[in-house]
Amino acid sequence: MQTIGLIVAYDGTPFSGWQRQEGSRTIQGELENALSRINAMPTQVRGASRTDAGVHAEWQVAAFETPRNYAPERWVQAINATTPPEIMVRRAFVAPDFFQPRFASRGKHYRYLVWQGNFVPPHLVHRAARTRVLDVENMRRAAASLLGEHDFSAFRAIDCQAKSPVRTLTRLDISVSRPHFEYPCEDGGALIQFDVEGTAFLKQMVRIMVGTLIEFGTGRPSEEMAEILESRARVRAGQTAPACGLTLMRSFCDDAFGSVGSE
Amino acid sequence: MQTIGLIVAYDGTPFSGWQRQEGSRTIQGELENALSRINAMPTQVRGASRTDAGVHAEWQVAAFETPRNYAPERWVQAINATTPPEIMVRRAFVAPDFFQPRFASRGKHYRYLVWQGNFVPPHLVHRAARTRVLDVENMRRAAASLLGEHDFSAFRAIDCQAKSPVRTLTRLDISVSRPHFEYPCEDGGALIQFDVEGTAFLKQMVRIMVGTLIEFGTGRPSEEMAEILESRARVRAGQTAPACGLTLMRSFCDDAFGSVGSE
Repeated sequence: MQTIGLIVAYDGTPFSGWQRQEGSRTIQGELENALSRINAMPTQVRGASRTDAGVHAEWQVAAFETPRNYAPERWVQAINATTPPEIMVRRAFVAPDFFQPRFASRGKHYRYLVWQGNFVPPHLVHRAARTRVLDVENMRRAAASLLGEHDFSAFRAIDCQAKSPVRTLTRLDISVSRPHFEYPCEDGGALIQFDVEGTAFLKQMVRIMVGTLIEFGTGRPSEEMAEILESRARVRAGQTAPACGLTLMRSFCDDAFGSVGSE
Repeated sequence: MQTIGLIVAYDGTPFSGWQRQEGSRTIQGELENALSRINAMPTQVRGASRTDAGVHAEWQVAAFETPRNYAPERWVQAINATTPPEIMVRRAFVAPDFFQPRFASRGKHYRYLVWQGNFVPPHLVHRAARTRVLDVENMRRAAASLLGEHDFSAFRAIDCQAKSPVRTLTRLDISVSRPHFEYPCEDGGALIQFDVEGTAFLKQMVRIMVGTLIEFGTGRPSEEMAEILESRARVRAGQTAPACGLTLMRSFCDDAFGSVGSE
């Protein structure tokens, strides 16, 4: 048996998240169905991140075992020919035996898109959440308090299973782009992009951080972000932003495992 | 009664095209359902372009009659609150009585997207057709023969109803952009964009032109484009490119009608 690693991209819209569930279409389930057929034996797939229903990915890392001795390019062809078009294997590679993407992960980059306008543009309906006009400078001031190593208890889902709530946030950039066309909105519409990087994340941490930052965009004083963090209380933070705005841009895996994550 | 003009954008994926059809979801049908409810009377909607099933629009022009005296912004709110999220009214305006967008149209800009790679990226599955690596320079040489006023009989659907096959093409630009991520393809993948403008178009003219240009991208000598045009024979041109790659970027209407089409 050989362990094969995969770099996978997907549009999360038609799926009930990464994790296999009986009776639901999931990304792990679709990959396992395809690989069980190709391998002619039941095949399990392990992923670096369990993305929620509706969350997208550009660079998820996954792995499985196989008795077949295919070249990496043949795996790319075979899997892409068998899975739905919303799932794409970018690259396959021979991995160390029983390679575990979750434990090899040394960091992740998530991107969250928010549409500032009265209605989300049709081509972004499943890609962006919606807000009214935001004070981006105030959001940036509040975001600065989140950088570095902190106890992120205020920014985790109530059912988060992680043993330690301490995580290190290395990047939280907020950028604004104006579309070519005007949209119904007092400022003509804009796309706001949150780029978040860290060594690891708690359950729904990015979506809770974005939902909280949006409150700072609509008037909450930026000093309060440090207080939310110190309180360690989920109720002090904002709402969880919708899943559809989130994309796992990159799951960085340890260089020892086939230089995964390098471009 | 007052005539109201609309600028409409839509993602064509879930619809059976613009034109109303019993038992199918169409853009005209969804707008007429919404407006009949708002007007509390049966309301017909006229459009500048009858886009095919799966074709998208950024700037379609439409019009309808109403007994209501709403301000333009109120029409934008009321229609967008009633139609599916894949349809968006950008702007409403008071139009001349019985304004006919089709006859007021003085030109159109279409964009066609082709993904050069083995598989279309998940987020572009409903936005781009797929091809292998193309010779863009040869396509540009062939495209030059199509500019200007010609009999475009070779580039019209067999059931096209237009009386004259003569049209004027004012722009046919082909541009290539490289995505941030690598994709399965010998050249790493690329997005090819065809920007086509003209005073008016025959049925499926843009899709047949793109399908033909792709043949020039895979080896047909560029001189043959002039021969196809002169032959006036649909069989000499290439296949009709898939609908999902096409977007109506702009329907330019006469300035006399409320400066529609100006940004």
